[in-house]
Amino acid sequence: MTNLLIIYATDYGNTKKMAEAVASGAESVPDTQVVLKTAEEITATDMEESDGIVVGTPVHMGAPDWRIKQFIDNICGGLWMQDKLVGKAGAVFTSGSGFGSAGAGCELAMISLLNNFAELGMLIVPLPKSTPGYPHGGLHWGPYGRSAGINMEQDGIREESLEAAKHHGANVARVAAAIKGPKLFA
Amino acid sequence: MTNLLIIYATDYGNTKKMAEAVASGAESVPDTQVVLKTAEEITATDMEESDGIVVGTPVHMGAPDWRIKQFIDNICGGLWMQDKLVGKAGAVFTSGSGFGSAGAGCELAMISLLNNFAELGMLIVPLPKSTPGYPHGGLHWGPYGRSAGINMEQDGIREESLEAAKHHGANVARVAAAIKGPKLFA
Amino acid sequence: MTNLLIIYATDYGNTKKMAEAVASGAESVPDTQVVLKTAEEITATDMEESDGIVVGTPVHMGAPDWRIKQFIDNICGGLWMQDKLVGKAGAVFTSGSGFGSAGAGCELAMISLLNNFAELGMLIVPLPKSTPGYPHGGLHWGPYGRSAGINMEQDGIREESLEAAKHHGANVARVAAAIKGPKLFA
Amino acid sequence: MTNLLIIYATDYGNTKKMAEAVASGAESVPDTQVVLKTAEEITATDMEESDGIVVGTPVHMGAPDWRIKQFIDNICGGLWMQDKLVGKAGAVFTSGSGFGSAGAGCELAMISLLNNFAELGMLIVPLPKSTPGYPHGGLHWGPYGRSAGINMEQDGIREESLEAAKHHGANVARVAAAIKGPKLFA
Repeated sequence: MTNLLIIYATDYGNTKKMAEAVASGAESVPDTQVVLKTAEEITATDMEESDGIVVGTPVHMGAPDWRIKQFIDNICGGLWMQDKLVGKAGAVFTSGSGFGSAGAGCELAMISLLNNFAELGMLIVPLPKSTPGYPHGGLHWGPYGRSAGINMEQDGIREESLEAAKHHGANVARVAAAIKGPKLFA
Repeated sequence: MTNLLIIYATDYGNTKKMAEAVASGAESVPDTQVVLKTAEEITATDMEESDGIVVGTPVHMGAPDWRIKQFIDNICGGLWMQDKLVGKAGAVFTSGSGFGSAGAGCELAMISLLNNFAELGMLIVPLPKSTPGYPHGGLHWGPYGRSAGINMEQDGIREESLEAAKHHGANVARVAAAIKGPKLFA
Repeated sequence: MTNLLIIYATDYGNTKKMAEAVASGAESVPDTQVVLKTAEEITATDMEESDGIVVGTPVHMGAPDWRIKQFIDNICGGLWMQDKLVGKAGAVFTSGSGFGSAGAGCELAMISLLNNFAELGMLIVPLPKSTPGYPHGGLHWGPYGRSAGINMEQDGIREESLEAAKHHGANVARVAAAIKGPKLFA
Repeated sequence: MTNLLIIYATDYGNTKKMAEAVASGAESVPDTQVVLKTAEEITATDMEESDGIVVGTPVHMGAPDWRIKQFIDNICGGLWMQDKLVGKAGAVFTSGSGFGSAGAGCELAMISLLNNFAELGMLIVPLPKSTPGYPHGGLHWGPYGRSAGINMEQDGIREESLEAAKHHGANVARVAAAIKGPKLFA
């Protein structure tokens, strides 16, 4: 059994929708068990028991939501100190109004989340451009759930973003299964 | 007189169009003199004689074009060593097909260019979201000239991107004029 | 009179020491008034009344402390929406144990802070390599107060880092004064 | 047999030494075959035939050497277009004089290289902080071969950096072997 942990914060429910799509994709992979929690609910044990972790956040000022950062500071810092998550799989996704047509800061927000995984010694799973839903809902670092048009006219997360998120979840589940057996880092 | 240097590389002429728009915006500011050159043409003297420098590049694999990087390695490295450009104004812009609706790597490409300016000790001029043309052609780090739709259907640089580029050029010219007199860094 | 606002979070007092050094440097510039506050104390009015803002943070997992992010989300987001800080000066600094001899994630932590300033339309003030104290306490994005050796042996912030921080404060004060008069962005 | 491709550019031989250390580490893993080439020598076929790719570069102005960028633009761009490298393993390392004690731009240089791998849909292998040699020669994104002290006094790549590089090579070889069988991305 591969254990996948999905962690998110949400403002208006959009990032939650993306998180649920990631979860449903992961669950579609045989022998995968998914735990879906908000950043406030996460414990160090949740992270240690997982084989792969996906973190999602709304984009605020080009960076993750402060609740996500709070969990990183309070939980991941200690796990880093003890090398507890080395060799697990990690991946990310974001949501946001996305003002403009140049990403609205989602790229650096994703890299900031991946930074945490790299420090923890985790393998990073990107989003290939061939993923269904990519043209509307994808960046190479992970799925992006835009909830608005280029002028911030709110029209909600589109199906394509959720489709990219589902595939991302399944990809991470397969990667986590492939790397969970052997000791890869020495 | 404020001297503004605009440096670019271009593949199909799109980044050149953006560079020309930056130049025309800068020239609209009284007492501004503009030099527009490709990365291959630049000399260290061009850079030393300027009060502000704007660099533009096509986005390739989420980073600047190699011709831009070649000029940075060959010219800027030596100027860095000698602290020759400290206190000048710097700004950037990019162009690209922009596959997807999440920026297609333009953000990290811009930051990579700005990195060079920061190392040189130059003040960085961003692009405020209130800039005309921003919704189609802007990111906070600088203007983005998308030449295609989300599925890479090529339809050329749009007027909005050129408008954002013009305002960027004028903004940089005004900033360069404001900071050129006094010695700001000690 | 130029108003400089310095905002920080601190764990063990090291970032506070750096913040005080930035403040003392700024105060050494004639006609500069400094306000020094923690992230929890900041109000939108503090930011609007300033001509320049310097933010400092401990580095946690390669990114700013969550208290800094909380203030960015809660205060800066609204100011961004209303374009309230366009054209002010912004700068950053960090502190940290700095495990290793490759920066320990301070670079991306600084860029994440600068991202906020770029979104707000603020001019970014870097740290020239010619700044006194740079070899021990500087990165091109801003001063870095290392509080430990490469094996995390805690020996406190060194004088060189505080010296770089002082000069940074003075540089930002001078830049803020130079750009505060004219309307630079249109 | 797992095929590992190591690509580098070098100025004074330091990055070459790091590349050779990565290669020797990879070769220490049973059933691993290593190809070591400079950026100028690489062909698209080299990349397609590999199971894992490690790229190393000198750091120039906070970014990869232009010769590395030239190979990325000329070779990787086309492979990206055709989704040819999806699901392979990717990793990076850098070298540099490392002026200062805050990384001297090596972090963003590594992220810029990893950006290319993410766009290509490749899994990213980080460097855990528990890796031997890390305190002197490691950053979480990959090994860093400092060739000088904080004042740029050149004293050459140290053994610790080469040790971190060796372990990195072995880690990537093991990861590439673990993920090469199954189709992980859909």
